[in-house]
Amino acid sequence: MDFSSDTSAPTHPAVLEALAAANAGNAPSYGDDAVTAAARAALAEVFETDDFDLWMCASGTASNALALSCFCPPTGAVLCHEGAHIAVDERGAPEFFSGGGKLQLLPGSQGKIDETALRGALARINHDFVHETPAHVLSLTNLTESGCAYRSEEIAHFAALAHEHDLTVHLDGARLANALVSTGASPAEMSWRAGVDVLTFGLTKTGAIGCEIILLFGRARAKLAELKARAKRSGHMPPKMRFLAAQATALLQDGLWLELARAANRSARQVANVLCAVDGVSLAQPVDGNEVFVTLPDALADRLLAAGAKFYPWPDGSYRLVCSWVTSEAEIEALRAAVASNP
Amino acid sequence: MDFSSDTSAPTHPAVLEALAAANAGNAPSYGDDAVTAAARAALAEVFETDDFDLWMCASGTASNALALSCFCPPTGAVLCHEGAHIAVDERGAPEFFSGGGKLQLLPGSQGKIDETALRGALARINHDFVHETPAHVLSLTNLTESGCAYRSEEIAHFAALAHEHDLTVHLDGARLANALVSTGASPAEMSWRAGVDVLTFGLTKTGAIGCEIILLFGRARAKLAELKARAKRSGHMPPKMRFLAAQATALLQDGLWLELARAANRSARQVANVLCAVDGVSLAQPVDGNEVFVTLPDALADRLLAAGAKFYPWPDGSYRLVCSWVTSEAEIEALRAAVASNP
Amino acid sequence: MDFSSDTSAPTHPAVLEALAAANAGNAPSYGDDAVTAAARAALAEVFETDDFDLWMCASGTASNALALSCFCPPTGAVLCHEGAHIAVDERGAPEFFSGGGKLQLLPGSQGKIDETALRGALARINHDFVHETPAHVLSLTNLTESGCAYRSEEIAHFAALAHEHDLTVHLDGARLANALVSTGASPAEMSWRAGVDVLTFGLTKTGAIGCEIILLFGRARAKLAELKARAKRSGHMPPKMRFLAAQATALLQDGLWLELARAANRSARQVANVLCAVDGVSLAQPVDGNEVFVTLPDALADRLLAAGAKFYPWPDGSYRLVCSWVTSEAEIEALRAAVASNP
Amino acid sequence: MDFSSDTSAPTHPAVLEALAAANAGNAPSYGDDAVTAAARAALAEVFETDDFDLWMCASGTASNALALSCFCPPTGAVLCHEGAHIAVDERGAPEFFSGGGKLQLLPGSQGKIDETALRGALARINHDFVHETPAHVLSLTNLTESGCAYRSEEIAHFAALAHEHDLTVHLDGARLANALVSTGASPAEMSWRAGVDVLTFGLTKTGAIGCEIILLFGRARAKLAELKARAKRSGHMPPKMRFLAAQATALLQDGLWLELARAANRSARQVANVLCAVDGVSLAQPVDGNEVFVTLPDALADRLLAAGAKFYPWPDGSYRLVCSWVTSEAEIEALRAAVASNP
Repeated sequence: MDFSSDTSAPTHPAVLEALAAANAGNAPSYGDDAVTAAARAALAEVFETDDFDLWMCASGTASNALALSCFCPPTGAVLCHEGAHIAVDERGAPEFFSGGGKLQLLPGSQGKIDETALRGALARINHDFVHETPAHVLSLTNLTESGCAYRSEEIAHFAALAHEHDLTVHLDGARLANALVSTGASPAEMSWRAGVDVLTFGLTKTGAIGCEIILLFGRARAKLAELKARAKRSGHMPPKMRFLAAQATALLQDGLWLELARAANRSARQVANVLCAVDGVSLAQPVDGNEVFVTLPDALADRLLAAGAKFYPWPDGSYRLVCSWVTSEAEIEALRAAVASNP
Repeated sequence: MDFSSDTSAPTHPAVLEALAAANAGNAPSYGDDAVTAAARAALAEVFETDDFDLWMCASGTASNALALSCFCPPTGAVLCHEGAHIAVDERGAPEFFSGGGKLQLLPGSQGKIDETALRGALARINHDFVHETPAHVLSLTNLTESGCAYRSEEIAHFAALAHEHDLTVHLDGARLANALVSTGASPAEMSWRAGVDVLTFGLTKTGAIGCEIILLFGRARAKLAELKARAKRSGHMPPKMRFLAAQATALLQDGLWLELARAANRSARQVANVLCAVDGVSLAQPVDGNEVFVTLPDALADRLLAAGAKFYPWPDGSYRLVCSWVTSEAEIEALRAAVASNP
Repeated sequence: MDFSSDTSAPTHPAVLEALAAANAGNAPSYGDDAVTAAARAALAEVFETDDFDLWMCASGTASNALALSCFCPPTGAVLCHEGAHIAVDERGAPEFFSGGGKLQLLPGSQGKIDETALRGALARINHDFVHETPAHVLSLTNLTESGCAYRSEEIAHFAALAHEHDLTVHLDGARLANALVSTGASPAEMSWRAGVDVLTFGLTKTGAIGCEIILLFGRARAKLAELKARAKRSGHMPPKMRFLAAQATALLQDGLWLELARAANRSARQVANVLCAVDGVSLAQPVDGNEVFVTLPDALADRLLAAGAKFYPWPDGSYRLVCSWVTSEAEIEALRAAVASNP
Repeated sequence: MDFSSDTSAPTHPAVLEALAAANAGNAPSYGDDAVTAAARAALAEVFETDDFDLWMCASGTASNALALSCFCPPTGAVLCHEGAHIAVDERGAPEFFSGGGKLQLLPGSQGKIDETALRGALARINHDFVHETPAHVLSLTNLTESGCAYRSEEIAHFAALAHEHDLTVHLDGARLANALVSTGASPAEMSWRAGVDVLTFGLTKTGAIGCEIILLFGRARAKLAELKARAKRSGHMPPKMRFLAAQATALLQDGLWLELARAANRSARQVANVLCAVDGVSLAQPVDGNEVFVTLPDALADRLLAAGAKFYPWPDGSYRLVCSWVTSEAEIEALRAAVASNP
């Protein structure tokens, strides 16, 4: 009953098989190899475009910070939700990589930015007023940090607002697969077709060992050389790049990544159902993906923990339970049994 | 005939087996798992001490820069060889991670710091003279960037000089294994017993996919919390840490890493012998490890490249050929044949 | 009728006289001169202590950022009011000087931090949770950005809370003189006796050309060497330091600085009275110092501006009028006349 | 007998008079005032162009670092002489302001960059090789740190080489006036006509209190907004800018700055003559400006210091004596007497 995080899950066997396949003999370092070329081809197919450039690294924090640092100068700011991973959970990585840029935090329910707050922040941008820090980037997260999904139309709407003020639009897609299967949008619809300029696309939580991809779409491709230089100097240019690429291809092939996300989402709904069947339990957030935020009586929470369930309290007073591709029927049943057991 | 770099080599099969073994079920994120505990135990045995702390990341550049940034403040400098990897090949990573610290470059043959130059630099340190940047760290590299090995006595001598001036001693051991089997020193003799405070110990070039370990010895352990915070904010805190740890254990167990380094060193000596048998070819540097720096007639270099040998010219006018654990007798023989073929 | 800012005021004649007096012959650079020694003596008398170190620079932004950067590491955060000058008006100076540290913004009326919000932020500090950024400094501002004054007891109360969590307490005193004459507190009571560890004490807005002083009290003195190194590398170590010191001494002597602040505060109350006599005008904030924040009917604001009054709208919808030591009775009367004139 | 530094000199009386004149009543903050406009007009006349933008600050270190940071990205390098002030005497300011950029040090006699070394460094720039840091800026210093003067033709020659490789050309003119009167070049000839893109033009050492001007010429003007933002966030945007501008105008008017530099240079030649008349004394560097670098017998140096002469030993083993606008005949005569006195 491990609902602690989707990063405590193992990697999918197809990933290990792909590593072994990629290990045949020598290959050029730093991405000039056939395995990396195959990953690019897989991404082109998945995103239905060839108008993109990419960089891969093992860390979601790094992929976010690298992406932001190419578009937000040290004298600028990034607009994001006040609960965004980049704001709360990355120990200042965006500030570090950008050379001291700012995050400008916006409120909003379900982890989504409130539109009025966004419009206000955009209206206040004044590049001619040297004393204040103007926003250069809008960063959205899907799934949000509350486990909810923006629909692609919402992304497109916010991106259009941001573009009116010449901002770059970044999407943190650490759980993009979960958002896609939840909303039914295609990867293209949720990214470049919605106006996303730079996407950090995570496969680690979906089932990789550690594989995060930065995608620069369209005019954002002009930043590729800077992105690579920043990746190099931050230690995110692995010489044996093929082993990152192999992970990507293994998951993208035949839609495995979406299948794994679908399983995780389904498990999360089951967890929600099991818990909400109890009097006094209610969802703190809609369950759009693989995360369940519930309000639990303390006694119940203690009982579940005592029964071996792993999950964490959340700063808002709720509890978070996360499912992954490996969450099993047996774990759900064990949770159901623990819920049902007499206190 | 791939002598381009030891990073173009595949990973050793034992590493892939270890990844598979580490993949059994869920495990805590961020290093609180049994696989990581086992790696620590293996390191304790290899380094014959328990008085150390460690951090693992996938990148040698990052491990160097993280280590240096914990001991060199933004207002300070690191003494290193003018050809050191941290100075030449990391695109400013030390300056980035340290917040704008300096590298103070020292000359010396064989990639080793000249003792007179080192003594001069140490003597000029004046913390009371605010206008100039005082050195806080001495960084040595073994193997050096010229493929030569410091003996552990040399390390100890330089470390003692540095400690007299209250510097921290860093050893960049990206090719530590090659230096150990070359000199016969034990890991302990080449590190903490020689006065090394912080070691960045690389296994990637030895045979891992990507596994570099920062070891803080003795009083340097006081920096562990800072090291972790810096690792987090630079994207070098992989959630699925067990897959880094598994690589370390696989290679450290039963001395596999030293065996692989021994094979690479042996191949390098064979390459050197093959080349030096030709008139007009001479070693540019002693071959202490798995790298061969030779002065070749242009015609010969062209012929070898045309025959399919992969290697690069070096800034000093020589050519560099690198061997790895996977360099085969067949490759050596093919090189011999290419050398022997009539122009 | 210039109510635009206290920085549009000229310098007091005593300052120019002091510059001329300081200009007698050569003097050692960088603060090793008699004029600087005299300024230190004046500060010791004003603050009733000798347990302090100091640095002077011409910029309030720099003095804040330098002070914060000595106590907040790149991996840490500064707690401050969401409207604080360091957060809103310094174009990211604290992030720049600290190497990418964060500001954690807290709400509160009158520009004062809300105590509940402060307690909550302090309670959430967890140095062992590497993913989130722990606060290292509490920064207060007096006068606040809303023109209000913390009493020294309030400073002491908040400082005590911060010290319980091992934070350093910083006071941004760009308008310290105005706060002192408003509350009746002595400089000592408002600073080190209240638990302030590091004070940035501004004289520019009081009547200098440009003179801001960083005062390290008690245990904070341990940071003097770091402060000087950071001042040097940020270009805040003027070789002809005596001309900064002369400004300080001129204003501190015989309480001139307090006299000037008293005049500015008095003018502000007169401005407030003149405006509030009109129907539909009300104070947006209490007038504790030399700043008046009023809610004005648009027609009245336009009429005043048309009559030559200089002042600015404020982001909260009010208007800000600032008085300085040089604000004259004639200006107040002109404002009264403009208010009274038929629309 | 103060030959310690030109920064130990007082300011010229005309500067103090200008401050008093600038102090008439209120004036807009941050440079939107008539005094600042007058300084711009004076600069246009002195530099015989209107195709420039400018920023003023009190610090030479800051003006250099601000200028460099607008043209050298964090991933880039600045080529400069190994003894340059930016390399040796600014405690890492260029690295700090640029966000971790590098200085690439080049040798050369008289503090001038050796042309072969420069050509070599330019030839090695490879923006496509991500591992190494490419140079973006060439920084020259005139007077050099050895007190020698580049002729404007030399500047033009080096600038042309740099421009062939798309570098920006920076001139550190902390002692520009001394170089101009020494070589007979006009300000225009020594700057934009020679291909200088960005000039940091110092008046502090010439006779100001603290006044350094950054001049962006031609296409470099595109960086003005970035320069201002960086000035703001580094605390180099004084609200009462008029007092910087007044210093500039006072010195530039009627060629006062050149007259003061001429006097200082003349004194330096006299000092050189006085010293070189002694057996065993020789110039370590040509005396092109107001600095004298001499090789002195230790006994003589000690005797001069004992007689009250102030000057410093230099790292190269020589001694440096610096003259300023205020160096008097009496001081020269006192030096002559001290030299002549029986040991």
